[in-house]
Amino acid sequence: MNLHDEMIAMGDRAVAVSRELAKLGAEAKNGMLRGMAAALRARAAELLTANAGDMEAGRAAELSASMLDRLQLTDARIDAMARGLDEVAALRDPVGETLSETTRPNGLVIRKVRVPIGVIAIIYEARPNVTADAAALCFKSANAVILRGGKEAGRSNRAIAQVLREGGAACGMPIDAIQLVETTDREAVRELVQLTGRVDLVIPRGGESLIRAVMEQARVPVIKHYKGVCHVFVDASADLAMAESIVENAKCQRPGVCNAMECLLVHEAVASAFLPRMAARLVARGCGLRGDAAARALVDGIRPATEKDWSTEYMALVLNIRVVGSVNEAVAHINRYGSQHSDAIVTGDEASARIFTQEVDSAAVYVNASTRFTDGGEFGMGAEMGISTDKLHARGPMGLEELTTYKYVVRGSGQVRG
Amino acid sequence: MNLHDEMIAMGDRAVAVSRELAKLGAEAKNGMLRGMAAALRARAAELLTANAGDMEAGRAAELSASMLDRLQLTDARIDAMARGLDEVAALRDPVGETLSETTRPNGLVIRKVRVPIGVIAIIYEARPNVTADAAALCFKSANAVILRGGKEAGRSNRAIAQVLREGGAACGMPIDAIQLVETTDREAVRELVQLTGRVDLVIPRGGESLIRAVMEQARVPVIKHYKGVCHVFVDASADLAMAESIVENAKCQRPGVCNAMECLLVHEAVASAFLPRMAARLVARGCGLRGDAAARALVDGIRPATEKDWSTEYMALVLNIRVVGSVNEAVAHINRYGSQHSDAIVTGDEASARIFTQEVDSAAVYVNASTRFTDGGEFGMGAEMGISTDKLHARGPMGLEELTTYKYVVRGSGQVRG
Repeated sequence: MNLHDEMIAMGDRAVAVSRELAKLGAEAKNGMLRGMAAALRARAAELLTANAGDMEAGRAAELSASMLDRLQLTDARIDAMARGLDEVAALRDPVGETLSETTRPNGLVIRKVRVPIGVIAIIYEARPNVTADAAALCFKSANAVILRGGKEAGRSNRAIAQVLREGGAACGMPIDAIQLVETTDREAVRELVQLTGRVDLVIPRGGESLIRAVMEQARVPVIKHYKGVCHVFVDASADLAMAESIVENAKCQRPGVCNAMECLLVHEAVASAFLPRMAARLVARGCGLRGDAAARALVDGIRPATEKDWSTEYMALVLNIRVVGSVNEAVAHINRYGSQHSDAIVTGDEASARIFTQEVDSAAVYVNASTRFTDGGEFGMGAEMGISTDKLHARGPMGLEELTTYKYVVRGSGQVRG
Repeated sequence: MNLHDEMIAMGDRAVAVSRELAKLGAEAKNGMLRGMAAALRARAAELLTANAGDMEAGRAAELSASMLDRLQLTDARIDAMARGLDEVAALRDPVGETLSETTRPNGLVIRKVRVPIGVIAIIYEARPNVTADAAALCFKSANAVILRGGKEAGRSNRAIAQVLREGGAACGMPIDAIQLVETTDREAVRELVQLTGRVDLVIPRGGESLIRAVMEQARVPVIKHYKGVCHVFVDASADLAMAESIVENAKCQRPGVCNAMECLLVHEAVASAFLPRMAARLVARGCGLRGDAAARALVDGIRPATEKDWSTEYMALVLNIRVVGSVNEAVAHINRYGSQHSDAIVTGDEASARIFTQEVDSAAVYVNASTRFTDGGEFGMGAEMGISTDKLHARGPMGLEELTTYKYVVRGSGQVRG
């Protein structure tokens, strides 16, 4: 079978299985998830062997130390994957929930009910734990999943998918609820994202080039995490001690993640009181600073920020700084250069807070808190399938509910339309 | 300016205006909508003159009588457009609504708030009233709209858009809240649906070829109404008098619309009791019948249905008929040949109803009622922007709420992540 036909057959299997999954109750699904977790633990040795092959090939290909770290499985990491599955089993099942119910004047009862999306394709890069995390969330929300991981983790992903399939099937799961695209042929991605009528949603998880490639090729709907260019704006009325602590946390606590801050905006009224102290604190944490002329006039050693810097996601200890004249100027900067992810204002003024939260067009807008809280766990969702910077269907952290859609179930007693 | 730059400039104007619209309160928007309605009534003569030009060109181009009818404006139709605007003004404003609110253990208050999507492009065919309907719904939900109508209605659409823009602006509306692509160049559609970062959503409204063209070209999200291949399944336990009335209504009351039935499925246990009477009633209404061998064995004069017929949206008095052995077989037929729009079961058996409503993967699933009720008005939404056969973001009738998204507004008191 050629690749095109293979991908269609995979899509057909996923569609068929998705109909079966939609009928499963929460208890049945939870038992299967716990079966998968148990299988991961029981077969850890197999996973480590497969992973050793990926690690060896990765070293031969001279992958960076951080890539090799992300690729590596250990007993502890396998146990963490298994715990993740058990945790998803413990989450509330959103499927079947009644979202609204109305009785119309003609007696029709219209119920809006939460249902699975159907078939979801996940396209991701090197980290093999995504295989288990994504499978668990899609399965709990009764979606069939087609996984396509990075080629560096090919052996590990195959082993993990096999263990999940067999562990779930031993507890009654239709085995094709979880399928993995095994070929490393890049054409498989194109085929996958063009499976209109078979794949209902594609979620790419990875860097900008992966996202762009998927967007160019996709014919089915995509929900994407594009990038996180997050801002903190320190308003004229800010509690400056609070602002220092929020800025340090947003930039330095974990600079390599999407909800870390990339740009600090400071109201000109407090710039001279705030910036020198703040800059010293950031420099002490090893943070490089770039800024506009006003910031550089207040603090020595700030490099000039280029136009491109303002929209760059550094994912590292580098920070842009700009002095603005008003909350409106801060909002305009964020809407122009930001990525609609997470942005914060530190302010003591309710009017500024209202302008900022209303006008900043981002998934999460904070008043007096760090941008680092944009996360499924922190939002109380229990687990997440990434963070959407799109505006349709799902925005911000995507938990189980965001992996569902709805249908209208209408009950009558013979009503016809006049 | 070339077309590419023109469309980008139009997108930039829409983005800028969308930020202003998001700040407007319901009363302000309602006043502007009523201003647009008043302007339509006051300038009806201008609209009729422009429309006469389209009608003359349409006759010269030998458009069909039904196309000319859809194209034509009259005083009554202009008044109906104006009333539509007044009705949208009277609808509840969904923008700003709190969808959920939780306080986290660390004290963060996370509020999920309904907000406009931003910029919506509507691509439609001949009927000029869509210009006013679409503009009203997008404006009320605080989205900037870019309209692109069919070239046959070019003069009418330009006149309507101009009157709406000036009527709204006279009441304080930013004039570019409503923009119309005036060129008839087909390349403009391609440019429009590729305005990533400027257009947030495209809604094509029209026939299959329009939808397919948009889907092929789009780089921004699309919500589409693909087609309505709707079914009624008459179960073994159906009240046959009720079934006759529902089937006749679903097929004959208005056969040219998307929620009309295209295929009747009958349980074999009642086929001989039901089909001959039903067929006679349909034939008396002028309906042509196509069917499988079992149906043709029971009723004379049914043409054989081809494989292609089962998935055809006739939009006319033609009906496919198939005899099935069980509710499961009915479900399988619908999921295979249907278009995920609206499907009904007529049954006296709760178990059958449950299987049907759970397993039929359509936007609206009916028990003992006609498929003709899938409609924003009938569902209590007040007005609709078409019916989505997609599963993401919006499914079924799209009212004002479906033209919105959400953001998270998080309030803290200095929280940082540990």
